[in-house]
Amino acid sequence: MTADYFLFLGLFGVAFFAVSGALMGHEKSINGFGVVVVASVTALGGGTIRDLLLTQPIFWVETPSYLYSAYGAVVLTVLSIRYLPPLSNYYFILMDAAGLAIFNIMGIEKALIEGTGMIVALTMGMTTGIFGGLLRDVICREVPLVMRGDLYATACLSGGLAYAALFALDAPYAWCIFGSLITTVFIRLGSLHWGWKPNIFKKGYTPKS
Amino acid sequence: MTADYFLFLGLFGVAFFAVSGALMGHEKSINGFGVVVVASVTALGGGTIRDLLLTQPIFWVETPSYLYSAYGAVVLTVLSIRYLPPLSNYYFILMDAAGLAIFNIMGIEKALIEGTGMIVALTMGMTTGIFGGLLRDVICREVPLVMRGDLYATACLSGGLAYAALFALDAPYAWCIFGSLITTVFIRLGSLHWGWKPNIFKKGYTPKS
Amino acid sequence: MTADYFLFLGLFGVAFFAVSGALMGHEKSINGFGVVVVASVTALGGGTIRDLLLTQPIFWVETPSYLYSAYGAVVLTVLSIRYLPPLSNYYFILMDAAGLAIFNIMGIEKALIEGTGMIVALTMGMTTGIFGGLLRDVICREVPLVMRGDLYATACLSGGLAYAALFALDAPYAWCIFGSLITTVFIRLGSLHWGWKPNIFKKGYTPKS
Repeated sequence: MTADYFLFLGLFGVAFFAVSGALMGHEKSINGFGVVVVASVTALGGGTIRDLLLTQPIFWVETPSYLYSAYGAVVLTVLSIRYLPPLSNYYFILMDAAGLAIFNIMGIEKALIEGTGMIVALTMGMTTGIFGGLLRDVICREVPLVMRGDLYATACLSGGLAYAALFALDAPYAWCIFGSLITTVFIRLGSLHWGWKPNIFKKGYTPKS
Repeated sequence: MTADYFLFLGLFGVAFFAVSGALMGHEKSINGFGVVVVASVTALGGGTIRDLLLTQPIFWVETPSYLYSAYGAVVLTVLSIRYLPPLSNYYFILMDAAGLAIFNIMGIEKALIEGTGMIVALTMGMTTGIFGGLLRDVICREVPLVMRGDLYATACLSGGLAYAALFALDAPYAWCIFGSLITTVFIRLGSLHWGWKPNIFKKGYTPKS
Repeated sequence: MTADYFLFLGLFGVAFFAVSGALMGHEKSINGFGVVVVASVTALGGGTIRDLLLTQPIFWVETPSYLYSAYGAVVLTVLSIRYLPPLSNYYFILMDAAGLAIFNIMGIEKALIEGTGMIVALTMGMTTGIFGGLLRDVICREVPLVMRGDLYATACLSGGLAYAALFALDAPYAWCIFGSLITTVFIRLGSLHWGWKPNIFKKGYTPKS
């Protein structure tokens, strides 16, 4: 039961991140198979690092469906870029936020199943969510999304805390997942829409170099 | 028997990539031990990631000959840069192509030995071939070779398909390897020499940002 | 006994690197949780890669104290940046050098305990010391410290050789550690203070591209 949810969510998360990678590859004028490489790294990177850290078999080596999902999403994205009217940049942000929210949950769950404590599980959720996109941005020589002023890692952590809270309240499993997804996506997109910016350092302070 | 071929090919692949890393380090004015670091990462990075993904012991920790091969190649490269007339950039491309072709085969083989299916094995071959050079380019703040318009990942995949085809036709082992090597190197160098450029997106289209 | 030293040194090493990551995050105008991400990657990256390479359980998953140490160091750094007078860039260099020296020893020790030879152990020490900072610099889009002309990897290797020499001379355990720490920090800071620059390639030579 849980494993079914897992696979289903995971296939979607992988596809969302693969689309975001293919879109960025296109914007950066990467062509040919390079697009497949950057999309695959985006889609599979975060989960791969999670599995390595938990010393588990890598998810896409064990279950090649994830690979098919990533490759299929790339092909569809390339075809739709080729034959459909141009998409706005908003789709990239949306895909990235959805992937972030899903992978966050999957990282937390897999860590809890392996018997880690909550602080390690939340760290693992952030790792799963953030690292695929981080690798994408590093390879494409972009300023990583997580390093910009918007609430990226914060959205991820909030989703994790929402999941933990609902779980502690014995909410039904589907509610935990749904609550966490909504929280992450809402905070991430809200920060972009309303321009929320955190400022943990003193205002107007510049470091002496 | 197979293991001997493996070690032999691997030592050469490691040496080729180490040379390519040292050459790029030199071009980027990296000096001192930084050159050894970038060359080692280039030479050992792809295979290390492959072994991590297959949850196998890391090849150079188990068989330190690979380490000696990498370090030896760096020393020879530094000495030849120091005492011989300057080499053209062509050597860098050649070393990189040879390493790519060899590591591609080794990744596919090791995955098949571990009992994965063909799509995972081809992915593992591309990972082994591409990631060493990708890490080199990211560390040196270059546009990764795989992200440029030339046929890099495509050459890698073609070599893998050639290997799979020859293997399926029951060709002798040495022929499988040779056929794959030739295919990868030919497509890679051919793309540079004749300026083959893939274009999987529509021509002349620029994304709306 | 040894395990106690290990944990104690490790917690300090993690904290030092976390501070260096938070300082760089601040200088790069990263804000919100992005600072926590870059500081954690810096603090935990090198040791994580070492544990992956040795196919050991990841240290901070097994012993979450390291996580608390990293997160605590980030919070303290952010608070001190916020409320104390600005620190000079010297603190960044100092923290980085101390972390480098400690992680170098820990990498060598853990490899030797796992029964590797000395050349693999020294490589593992350099990996542990260098990779956290390397990831920090790559994510923050800085020229990696190890790639600049200063003695970074060389300091690391010298500390490793000092450790190996003292160990071979049957020096007391604390002396081995202390000797190695002093060597690494001295060479690293000395290279910056007195401007030592290695030049392993011929002087005044520029590569033909």
